[in-house]
Amino acid sequence: MEKEKVVLAYSGGLDTSVILTWLKEECGYDVIAVCVNVGQKEDYDAIYEKALKTGAIKAYIIDAKEEFITDYIFPTIQAGAIYEEDYLLGTSFARPLIAKKLVEIAQKEQAVAIAHGATGKGNDQVRFELSIKALNPYLKIIAPWRVWNLKSREDCIEYAKKYKIPIAQTKKNIYSRDENIWHISHEGGDLEDPWNEHQTNIYKLTVSPQEAPDTPTYVEMDFEQGIPIAINGERLGALELMNQLNKIAGENGVGVIDIVENRLVGMKSRGVYETPGGTILYKAHKMLEKLTLDRNTMAFKQIVAQKYAQLVYDGMWFTPLREALAAFVDSTQQNVTGTVRLKLYKGNCIGAGSKSPYSLYNEEFVTFGEDEVYNQKDAEGFINLFGLPLTIQALMKEKLKKNNTKIEKRS
Amino acid sequence: MEKEKVVLAYSGGLDTSVILTWLKEECGYDVIAVCVNVGQKEDYDAIYEKALKTGAIKAYIIDAKEEFITDYIFPTIQAGAIYEEDYLLGTSFARPLIAKKLVEIAQKEQAVAIAHGATGKGNDQVRFELSIKALNPYLKIIAPWRVWNLKSREDCIEYAKKYKIPIAQTKKNIYSRDENIWHISHEGGDLEDPWNEHQTNIYKLTVSPQEAPDTPTYVEMDFEQGIPIAINGERLGALELMNQLNKIAGENGVGVIDIVENRLVGMKSRGVYETPGGTILYKAHKMLEKLTLDRNTMAFKQIVAQKYAQLVYDGMWFTPLREALAAFVDSTQQNVTGTVRLKLYKGNCIGAGSKSPYSLYNEEFVTFGEDEVYNQKDAEGFINLFGLPLTIQALMKEKLKKNNTKIEKRS
Amino acid sequence: MEKEKVVLAYSGGLDTSVILTWLKEECGYDVIAVCVNVGQKEDYDAIYEKALKTGAIKAYIIDAKEEFITDYIFPTIQAGAIYEEDYLLGTSFARPLIAKKLVEIAQKEQAVAIAHGATGKGNDQVRFELSIKALNPYLKIIAPWRVWNLKSREDCIEYAKKYKIPIAQTKKNIYSRDENIWHISHEGGDLEDPWNEHQTNIYKLTVSPQEAPDTPTYVEMDFEQGIPIAINGERLGALELMNQLNKIAGENGVGVIDIVENRLVGMKSRGVYETPGGTILYKAHKMLEKLTLDRNTMAFKQIVAQKYAQLVYDGMWFTPLREALAAFVDSTQQNVTGTVRLKLYKGNCIGAGSKSPYSLYNEEFVTFGEDEVYNQKDAEGFINLFGLPLTIQALMKEKLKKNNTKIEKRS
Amino acid sequence: MEKEKVVLAYSGGLDTSVILTWLKEECGYDVIAVCVNVGQKEDYDAIYEKALKTGAIKAYIIDAKEEFITDYIFPTIQAGAIYEEDYLLGTSFARPLIAKKLVEIAQKEQAVAIAHGATGKGNDQVRFELSIKALNPYLKIIAPWRVWNLKSREDCIEYAKKYKIPIAQTKKNIYSRDENIWHISHEGGDLEDPWNEHQTNIYKLTVSPQEAPDTPTYVEMDFEQGIPIAINGERLGALELMNQLNKIAGENGVGVIDIVENRLVGMKSRGVYETPGGTILYKAHKMLEKLTLDRNTMAFKQIVAQKYAQLVYDGMWFTPLREALAAFVDSTQQNVTGTVRLKLYKGNCIGAGSKSPYSLYNEEFVTFGEDEVYNQKDAEGFINLFGLPLTIQALMKEKLKKNNTKIEKRS
Repeated sequence: MEKEKVVLAYSGGLDTSVILTWLKEECGYDVIAVCVNVGQKEDYDAIYEKALKTGAIKAYIIDAKEEFITDYIFPTIQAGAIYEEDYLLGTSFARPLIAKKLVEIAQKEQAVAIAHGATGKGNDQVRFELSIKALNPYLKIIAPWRVWNLKSREDCIEYAKKYKIPIAQTKKNIYSRDENIWHISHEGGDLEDPWNEHQTNIYKLTVSPQEAPDTPTYVEMDFEQGIPIAINGERLGALELMNQLNKIAGENGVGVIDIVENRLVGMKSRGVYETPGGTILYKAHKMLEKLTLDRNTMAFKQIVAQKYAQLVYDGMWFTPLREALAAFVDSTQQNVTGTVRLKLYKGNCIGAGSKSPYSLYNEEFVTFGEDEVYNQKDAEGFINLFGLPLTIQALMKEKLKKNNTKIEKRS
Repeated sequence: MEKEKVVLAYSGGLDTSVILTWLKEECGYDVIAVCVNVGQKEDYDAIYEKALKTGAIKAYIIDAKEEFITDYIFPTIQAGAIYEEDYLLGTSFARPLIAKKLVEIAQKEQAVAIAHGATGKGNDQVRFELSIKALNPYLKIIAPWRVWNLKSREDCIEYAKKYKIPIAQTKKNIYSRDENIWHISHEGGDLEDPWNEHQTNIYKLTVSPQEAPDTPTYVEMDFEQGIPIAINGERLGALELMNQLNKIAGENGVGVIDIVENRLVGMKSRGVYETPGGTILYKAHKMLEKLTLDRNTMAFKQIVAQKYAQLVYDGMWFTPLREALAAFVDSTQQNVTGTVRLKLYKGNCIGAGSKSPYSLYNEEFVTFGEDEVYNQKDAEGFINLFGLPLTIQALMKEKLKKNNTKIEKRS
Repeated sequence: MEKEKVVLAYSGGLDTSVILTWLKEECGYDVIAVCVNVGQKEDYDAIYEKALKTGAIKAYIIDAKEEFITDYIFPTIQAGAIYEEDYLLGTSFARPLIAKKLVEIAQKEQAVAIAHGATGKGNDQVRFELSIKALNPYLKIIAPWRVWNLKSREDCIEYAKKYKIPIAQTKKNIYSRDENIWHISHEGGDLEDPWNEHQTNIYKLTVSPQEAPDTPTYVEMDFEQGIPIAINGERLGALELMNQLNKIAGENGVGVIDIVENRLVGMKSRGVYETPGGTILYKAHKMLEKLTLDRNTMAFKQIVAQKYAQLVYDGMWFTPLREALAAFVDSTQQNVTGTVRLKLYKGNCIGAGSKSPYSLYNEEFVTFGEDEVYNQKDAEGFINLFGLPLTIQALMKEKLKKNNTKIEKRS
Repeated sequence: MEKEKVVLAYSGGLDTSVILTWLKEECGYDVIAVCVNVGQKEDYDAIYEKALKTGAIKAYIIDAKEEFITDYIFPTIQAGAIYEEDYLLGTSFARPLIAKKLVEIAQKEQAVAIAHGATGKGNDQVRFELSIKALNPYLKIIAPWRVWNLKSREDCIEYAKKYKIPIAQTKKNIYSRDENIWHISHEGGDLEDPWNEHQTNIYKLTVSPQEAPDTPTYVEMDFEQGIPIAINGERLGALELMNQLNKIAGENGVGVIDIVENRLVGMKSRGVYETPGGTILYKAHKMLEKLTLDRNTMAFKQIVAQKYAQLVYDGMWFTPLREALAAFVDSTQQNVTGTVRLKLYKGNCIGAGSKSPYSLYNEEFVTFGEDEVYNQKDAEGFINLFGLPLTIQALMKEKLKKNNTKIEKRS
């Protein structure tokens, strides 16, 4: 009788190698290992080899970097989505893409289940599983960390030894990390006490502000309908653009945040995130919107952005609401075309100029002094009507006061 | 016959001196000059003298710094209110306070009108007048810039010469500025083209990041129920606290923003704002909220903060909605008590630790590994129900697909 | 020398006839009278004749009923937009359409200005003028009621007599009314005291509940992607559909509201609105959404609906934000297809069944008892994590209590 | 050895009687039965007796009707909270109160656990358990329906027979119902197909519109700061007021809704709710707010109301966010004092007049014709500035068009 197949989200690390073995040995599955490259720096050939050596019947290495940037990162920048006002969603929006690839392979290979190595305490399990449910509700989901008896890294090493799984990483990682083309996150270790200052030597993509050059670097970003298309006038593909921005920003110490955040599963956690290029992109995009969007649109877009961020953070990428919010966002981006100049200096990313053919900034209107386009006398009428509710309220109070005074006098 | 009295918001500068004369000479009022000190650096004795010399029948210098910080700045920090995601409302919330003082004097002096020197293009006219309307709807409001024939600074100088008004400022200010204990703003001049980078030599309260010290400065802020009360462990009064923070932040180049903003009166304008101490306070307060507020409260408070900011920006301080939002905010601040450590370095204001007796960060829950407080198996149930709408939607789609296939097969 | 042309929004009534004459005689314009038929019941031939007889150089009668329903009414139903929770926007969304027609004629006829008969106290002036500004910022706008010396209906009659303008309506209308295919509004007269109950004999499109039939009428509505397409199974064009619904609903006393509302121009007013067919459409559409939209989408759509309504009420139809909100709405309507049954009875419009191929109501899941699709044990995990923030908060409080107790004991 | 105690939310019905026995016999607890009277019509003496007879070591009947109305119902009316635009939260806000009583008894009796009879598919389990967690995180929670092997009513009857539990209800209830002073809900049976029209003979508190009197009933409600205090001028206590309103409204067929709603646990369900008195209260309160709240406050309060409703529905009563929203609401209610007249007629609840000493409706402002308080000329200035963003946007487009034309001509 043929074994059932399971698709495993495989990273080549200790955890997913142990899971691979566990799925094969203890659950009796044929395991198909899938490693999705969303920009994390790895030796993918080695991962491929290791998967097969560890017992997978088949392994896939999928390069999804371009799709990640184009279909996940750029729409989120356009939305201006930031979770809890700080977090640029680096891990969050990679998960649905990875899940999508897993489901595609599962369908192609006629697998019955998908397994992942996310723990039972984090957001990623939710993001993976919600995406899988949305894309294929019939696939079984296996989350070994929630079901097996291994409870720690030590247990895993024990297990690996037992099954002769090669353990490449001999030195223990102090921090739990997640990396892709957009960001790297750091959690755990001394960061678990929020009173501890994080050490800058944990950085992987950026230098610390103090180590950054003593002279500023200027960068000019071009956008078309909210999509970044060029750096310093040079038109670049999405991947090359991200790589260059990460380099420029990283060298100038730009893009680190250190926050306590609310996980979807009800607890707070603390993380340090490096998002060098992304920080430039968010800043530049916002500056361009300030030039090209009207006040009402900007104000409501803030509310949309918050909701968008919450959905992405919560793993709700493949949902009708996220798609409807994206339709809103798309509509707002028609005129978000132009150029933004930024000054990078020792951790700062400072606006240094913006222009757009669709600019709503109109020097004629704003200049102090005589003008034909704006009649200052209009302001009086505006204020009178804009303030009429306040006037009416004040008159009502005065009338009540007088009436009360009369009543008091009589009695 | 006695002349009617008008209360004039007087700064001692060219404009309001001309207005004083105009009110007296051309409108036939007795003018009472009122200068409200909200922290702008001025020679107040000289202003007092000048007012009388220019023809005021009476002059008032009112020190409102403490009230400004306690009743306007601190509640706004608690709200987390930021206009268009950047502007810390420095000018906006000073205006209602000044208006309140003007109304108080007007009532005391039985004046029939209040005059101010705000132009017909800006937000300040709205803020002054809405506040006056709300506080006393019977007072007449005079905004000379909207009614007289003077159209420029040159016209004012001409007028001043004619009436022998002393013109202290011989050199023309390139920038239009507004200063108080919280901030200074710069508008006009080369800033009117948003493509121009602003020059750092315009700064008044801060050094540029490049001129700031090469070593970081650490600062610890204590808050009680969302109100800052101490710096580096030393308990300080509101005024002393603001002054110290402005000094520390200013020396480290912290607190400058450069934005294009949407004025209430329908046009965009561009401004550079220095808010050194305020930038620290907002950052520190937010960090403490991240530790002490739950996710739902934080998320809705973002929406409240946006509305609060819009109201303050629009001059709607004395309104039922702003008061109701403040009641919401107050309720959320009960546990926003604790300490935040910040690292200031060449323009950066970096979180470097936070703690609170009311912290909702719970290391026991968040730590990876075995634990008693959190059952990882709960996650499965959570995900299944949290994701149930996605599953049902996916099942509905699959069912439709099957039905359509059947129909196609039949036909 | 040729006279300049003005396009006048002409109704054939006293006011706009006087305006026509005033524009011609006192302003020296050539007047082009334009009457846009959005469903108000009028003798359009008579209006045409009267315009020319009163002095217009040209007159247009434009039938915009179909466009009104398709491009203005239906999108607003899809949005679920209701102003201040009650008002179905009947007058509001007719104004931008009328303005659009006026601008089209003005451009075709090379007119330099557009004139309208809205007063200076209402919303309609804003709606007309904002639409004109958005569609052609170079057209001059003339609002005679804000500039001339006529102050009342009596003044108009006087003026009409002077210029021999035929006054058809000899009896004075007690109420100010606005009618179209969607609704009729009543304002003024005894309604100006909100304590007065409105008299049902003012109704034009509906009978009062008491006069309605003693037996219920059932009606079934079919929708496709949020657009109503059939009544009782019979597919109908937009105009026929609206007419039939108005008839059915009107006969059953359905669709009257009586509200105090906040005008955009700062004051409250009181109006009675009859929207018979529209009331059915809103109710039916909402019922279908309850069946086909998920919880998150519904919740956010409520916020969008409120903003949409506000924009429409405020005359902001032709704005980027309204268009972006419409894009959001469109995206949500993909599955709003199905059938709704309603029971009309003496003013009531009661849901009596709904079904959809895209229904997310899943009897399998909801039924009490054993099932395979839903594992009741999942609920525990869900509650534990959904409620974790409450638990952590409660634990924090308990810990503080204990600590305080300890401290008290020690001291 | 002493047995541990469990507090059981006891109704006297089949389910909780079986649970009582199960807790005693199979879990080895001493059971304390607590029946909280929130207005459901029951023979409480019989319930008390039955609890003891079924094996409880102690039984409590707690009359919480007054507290329910005052502390749960009235604040929710003030908030204007309505779940998914229709549901008046009748079951939702009773649960936290019941939970509070259970926790109080548990603490008094030193019980270690609380048990309830809510199933694993509904909202009530979440509401009970979240409230318990918030009030006492150390109490164990037992939800038998999620853990035991009984799967249906039939299983329960079997179980009851085995343990000789008296089964009062011999005839099976078709519908699942929840009743209190505010409402009664109906679910299940033929209602499970949303295409089925509900039968009016299921009503318990109201007659059907068709059976209601042929002449209208008028009722006048007085409110003080958003709290109803009198009917037809007669000041009444909260309980008497609710009872009278339920009677009046019920007799006139007012207050039934029939909806498909989104449960918190991810599925849709269909319910019929009778809320006779409550429907009057919501309507009257809203009418009074329309008279006394300004536009901005009303608009934001809608957003607050939606969030408030969601929290109440989701069992989040005892949370910081609900408390903060309540503080907002309180602040808005200061002037919601006055009288509302309603006309009840065969299911309709029609506004028939409203007045308030704090009314912001100002006849002077609204009346057409000459006036001194409002200058119609102000409207032009208002429109020009309010519409300035549209003008600037249109000018920008025109400029672009011209530029493009030029470019085209050249090439």
